[in-house]
Amino acid sequence: MADVITSEYRLATEPGLKRFVAAVLEAVGVTPDDAAIVADVLVAADLRGIESHGVARLEPYYVGRIRAGVLAAQPVVTTVHETPTSLLVDAGNGLGHPTAARTMARVLDKAAQMGAAFGAVRNANHYGIAGYYAMMALDRDMIGIASTNSVRYAAPTFGREILLGTNPLAFAIPAQHEPAFVLDFATTTVPRGKLDVYARKEKPLNPGWAIDANGHETLDPRVALNGALLPLGGYGTDNGGHKGYGLGLLVDILCGVLAGGAFGKDLAGPGDGPLPGTISHFFAAFKIAGFRDPEQFKADMDKELRAFKDSAKAPGHDRIYVAGEIEFEKTAYHRAHGIPVHVKVWDGLRKLAGELEIPFDFERSL
Amino acid sequence: MADVITSEYRLATEPGLKRFVAAVLEAVGVTPDDAAIVADVLVAADLRGIESHGVARLEPYYVGRIRAGVLAAQPVVTTVHETPTSLLVDAGNGLGHPTAARTMARVLDKAAQMGAAFGAVRNANHYGIAGYYAMMALDRDMIGIASTNSVRYAAPTFGREILLGTNPLAFAIPAQHEPAFVLDFATTTVPRGKLDVYARKEKPLNPGWAIDANGHETLDPRVALNGALLPLGGYGTDNGGHKGYGLGLLVDILCGVLAGGAFGKDLAGPGDGPLPGTISHFFAAFKIAGFRDPEQFKADMDKELRAFKDSAKAPGHDRIYVAGEIEFEKTAYHRAHGIPVHVKVWDGLRKLAGELEIPFDFERSL
Repeated sequence: MADVITSEYRLATEPGLKRFVAAVLEAVGVTPDDAAIVADVLVAADLRGIESHGVARLEPYYVGRIRAGVLAAQPVVTTVHETPTSLLVDAGNGLGHPTAARTMARVLDKAAQMGAAFGAVRNANHYGIAGYYAMMALDRDMIGIASTNSVRYAAPTFGREILLGTNPLAFAIPAQHEPAFVLDFATTTVPRGKLDVYARKEKPLNPGWAIDANGHETLDPRVALNGALLPLGGYGTDNGGHKGYGLGLLVDILCGVLAGGAFGKDLAGPGDGPLPGTISHFFAAFKIAGFRDPEQFKADMDKELRAFKDSAKAPGHDRIYVAGEIEFEKTAYHRAHGIPVHVKVWDGLRKLAGELEIPFDFERSL
Repeated sequence: MADVITSEYRLATEPGLKRFVAAVLEAVGVTPDDAAIVADVLVAADLRGIESHGVARLEPYYVGRIRAGVLAAQPVVTTVHETPTSLLVDAGNGLGHPTAARTMARVLDKAAQMGAAFGAVRNANHYGIAGYYAMMALDRDMIGIASTNSVRYAAPTFGREILLGTNPLAFAIPAQHEPAFVLDFATTTVPRGKLDVYARKEKPLNPGWAIDANGHETLDPRVALNGALLPLGGYGTDNGGHKGYGLGLLVDILCGVLAGGAFGKDLAGPGDGPLPGTISHFFAAFKIAGFRDPEQFKADMDKELRAFKDSAKAPGHDRIYVAGEIEFEKTAYHRAHGIPVHVKVWDGLRKLAGELEIPFDFERSL
């Protein structure tokens, strides 16, 4: 994994970067408790190697919106409905992460008591990586699920209107000695950021990634950026595009419709600019002990995950991964060697530090 | 949909076909209650246009195994573990459908009382379409989930060993006037039966469907039949194959590992022949009322589903479907006009009727 540590990256310490993110958020009016949660979620993404969802988003997704008055730094968060096994929260157009983390914590408490529980949040903003919230179940011997709808970028199978976000689904299941199984994936074939990267490199897209504005499949990244992403499975139904479309719509229902929030075309689309938060999240947890002794379950999880990792490799490949394994290894590596932050992001954070008069002091000393 | 009613098909009545399936099963020792459930599930698949999972499987999957002494006609079904929100059942190597339907019914009863519940079944056999069990939630204003692991046919991303079944996932969510959202999909790109069809027609496969025995992608259906299916998303990770692989493994964990049943390579593989049932199922249900008024939710579901159906179409397409819609329309059509049964299947059923001395009387009179 040392390959990412090039001259394009500088290295941050985990505590330093978290402290910095929290300080930035506090400087624009976020409470210390909320700021600490956001910092933890964003830095967790960078630790896991998911740069797109880490501190790179601090300014454009969060601080910029607070300063523009679009996102409430200190929202009024309310519990809309609650039963022993369910919970609906209104995030009051605040940062997604604190309300999401607190809602998942309450879902886990309910599941610890009742065996199973579900939760939803509406009127929220982007909450970072869905996997973070699913993973909160792991050390409680539960299985965790998290999802969110999001800004629209994708068209349904046979359609050309932009109606669906990348709508991720995350599942976290604990193992014993092996890293936990953590499946966290967008229900589109690729994220929109991939089109940007390919446009910059002037590389053609793969078939199955995107369509143009008229609904024709396109391999031209610049054309695709004015078109729409395709669901996992690609164009049409031959390769299962209807399955990815179904999963994307499932997420929009479990989040937007179930939470009584925005759904479908009422969500922000590309080019809408920053709007008050109208996205919704979905959470679930249940106890392994409702079925089996958790220690026996986790020992079997080790067997299951190892059987996949140890199985015969395809030509040209020397490793088979299970979901979450790469991110687990990257986290350990980045904790030991520093968190790589792209120089452009680094410079953006330095600028933010200057503007907000905050110490810029998270660089890892070599 | 009239296109399927060709000379290759004959038409059956729904009650006649159900009565026949039940009579066949009773003739090989299945109790009337169990036989009626299997008949209902199999005929539901044919009504929905999912021929591969309907009465075509009556002999090879169920009756043949009972007659071969591999599958218990009257199994000892036991509740292994139970809490107010969870349930683990051992199917005793009986038919999958009766124990699955009864377990889902108990999960729904628990969820009706507690708000949410999960269930699992182990030591089971093939249970037909997963969607049937998820759909049991619909008229109770709940959201239903069903899944099962299955005979192995697929290899993990970067691998070449056959470790995963087509492992379907099904979600059912009620609407008001619109047909319910019913997403029921295999986590491989295509089912194995598709390779058979292409081999028969000597048509090349699409990229992303299958690999040969050495792990190279292949477009030759005959070679693929000796290789492995690929997960949804196809070969490697570029088009999201790791997502389909993750979903397939998720299903194997939620079913096999959670139920304390067989998982991974301990499941039967292609060529193993009929073995005692070692597959496992997973079920979940939760109340919409735990979040919102169900009538308001269902009215919003109508809005959501209509927005997708009414959105602009891609060139060459005049309809956008939502999950479950085609199957809903086919069910209505087949109820009105008869259930098409392929002549080969029809002749097989006639043979079965002769052997078991059962009236062969389900043809629709014109």
